[in-house]
Amino acid sequence: MKIESTIQGLSESLKTARTNQKIIGLVPTMGNLHQGHLNLVREARKKCDIVVVSIFVNPIQFGPNEDYDSYPRTLEQDSKLLEEVGCDYIFAPTVEQMYGNQPRLTNISVSGITADLCGLQRPGHFDGVAVVVTKLFNIVRPEIAFFGEKDFQQLAVIRQFVRDLNMPIEITGVPIARAEDGLALSSRNGYLSEEHRKTAPIIHQCLKIAEQDLQQGKKLADVLANIASTLTQAGFVIDYVEARTPELQKIEEFNQNIVLFIAAKIGTTRLIDNLQVQHNA
Amino acid sequence: MKIESTIQGLSESLKTARTNQKIIGLVPTMGNLHQGHLNLVREARKKCDIVVVSIFVNPIQFGPNEDYDSYPRTLEQDSKLLEEVGCDYIFAPTVEQMYGNQPRLTNISVSGITADLCGLQRPGHFDGVAVVVTKLFNIVRPEIAFFGEKDFQQLAVIRQFVRDLNMPIEITGVPIARAEDGLALSSRNGYLSEEHRKTAPIIHQCLKIAEQDLQQGKKLADVLANIASTLTQAGFVIDYVEARTPELQKIEEFNQNIVLFIAAKIGTTRLIDNLQVQHNA
Repeated sequence: MKIESTIQGLSESLKTARTNQKIIGLVPTMGNLHQGHLNLVREARKKCDIVVVSIFVNPIQFGPNEDYDSYPRTLEQDSKLLEEVGCDYIFAPTVEQMYGNQPRLTNISVSGITADLCGLQRPGHFDGVAVVVTKLFNIVRPEIAFFGEKDFQQLAVIRQFVRDLNMPIEITGVPIARAEDGLALSSRNGYLSEEHRKTAPIIHQCLKIAEQDLQQGKKLADVLANIASTLTQAGFVIDYVEARTPELQKIEEFNQNIVLFIAAKIGTTRLIDNLQVQHNA
Repeated sequence: MKIESTIQGLSESLKTARTNQKIIGLVPTMGNLHQGHLNLVREARKKCDIVVVSIFVNPIQFGPNEDYDSYPRTLEQDSKLLEEVGCDYIFAPTVEQMYGNQPRLTNISVSGITADLCGLQRPGHFDGVAVVVTKLFNIVRPEIAFFGEKDFQQLAVIRQFVRDLNMPIEITGVPIARAEDGLALSSRNGYLSEEHRKTAPIIHQCLKIAEQDLQQGKKLADVLANIASTLTQAGFVIDYVEARTPELQKIEEFNQNIVLFIAAKIGTTRLIDNLQVQHNA
């Protein structure tokens, strides 16, 4: 495994692979890797000849009051994990390497599906994601890129701009990795106090109960209200509890496959989770 | 020479070239080709192994009151010209092929340099250009793409988003092709009445006189005012007469290399032209 910190270095490293028609896979991350990320790499390892993992805490996808500065940077530990799981290249550029010292004038925005859920609380977030992912795609030029389903809306946004702009890249979503108690793995779980860490799995429990309730015929609106009240009672401050189609369209009733979405704060930590619920007609 | 009308057909045609590491050049056009376009193709022929010319009248770069419907479509004649000049593939997709039948949610915008010159009169125009050029880049995946300097601002916008998004493509600008009387070649010249066609070269004459005046020490503001009054007297309705740096920054004095820009209507036809003026320090 090799660590590249410059675009030019990475391009030269990948030149031979490209000449030899190797299938290149990209796993974009912000580092501080957990089993969720490593599952993405394992999936890439299965499908690709060359696996590139990018580690870059992207400033332009953080809001002014978000955790850009404090976001955990753990490159040494990440490298060990990636070596074990079979990554070929880590691409770990600086902010200057990615954004240069000339002002960036170009923006990529996806309308509609970003005006909702995390897009409401995080204006500009998905533009920042679209720009950095496009840059990484153009730098690495992978055949396949891998993203976690935990960031379900992000995955939908990426699929959308890839389709709209004819990017020659297959987007693969990988299921959420969870702790034994059900908590969706996230780098931000590291912010939780011991007490809040014990409370956090309630999010997933709510989703599983909601799934059962829906499949037993309870009304969608009641099920969502039930999640909200359980979480509030447990000390969460709710950002949203919503149901959408897998394409993120609003839905009034449980009459097709849907996705349940939760975003909620406990203490100062914002957690998100989701669950795909099958409709058995 | 082969004409492809589908993305898949073109991809398959280019597969062998790509496998064999051929250098692919792209000349994006809206068809109705003249010597200006053919110069782009000749330049591509010199630098590339495989030359692709796209012919696509892109609806999303036209404003609601512009000439999308009446824009000349002359594929048969274009094909003959391209065959003579050494094009390998024409890519001539339908609107449906390019934009599908699902709504497009993704936009690419370049700020700053589009808020000026043609951007003022044509809101959304450069977004439409950025989107279609990005799509064509992703479909054709050329090493080099060729654009005319007549659309100087468009060229600057394309260079900007290519740099900002790390697109792995070299952008080559090609000088303006002119009729013997100096009129910059343009598909829109075909809209001119016989009388207006005789008047139109005044635009270029004004630019050449302005260049002389500047190099002889006349004040920039006076030179621009002089162009405007000459054109108005000749029957033009001026959209803009401006001087900018080659990076499109505003400028008060002629104290470095600059570009003079004119956009003006004669009858119902809007013409644009520009001239790069060297500053000999």
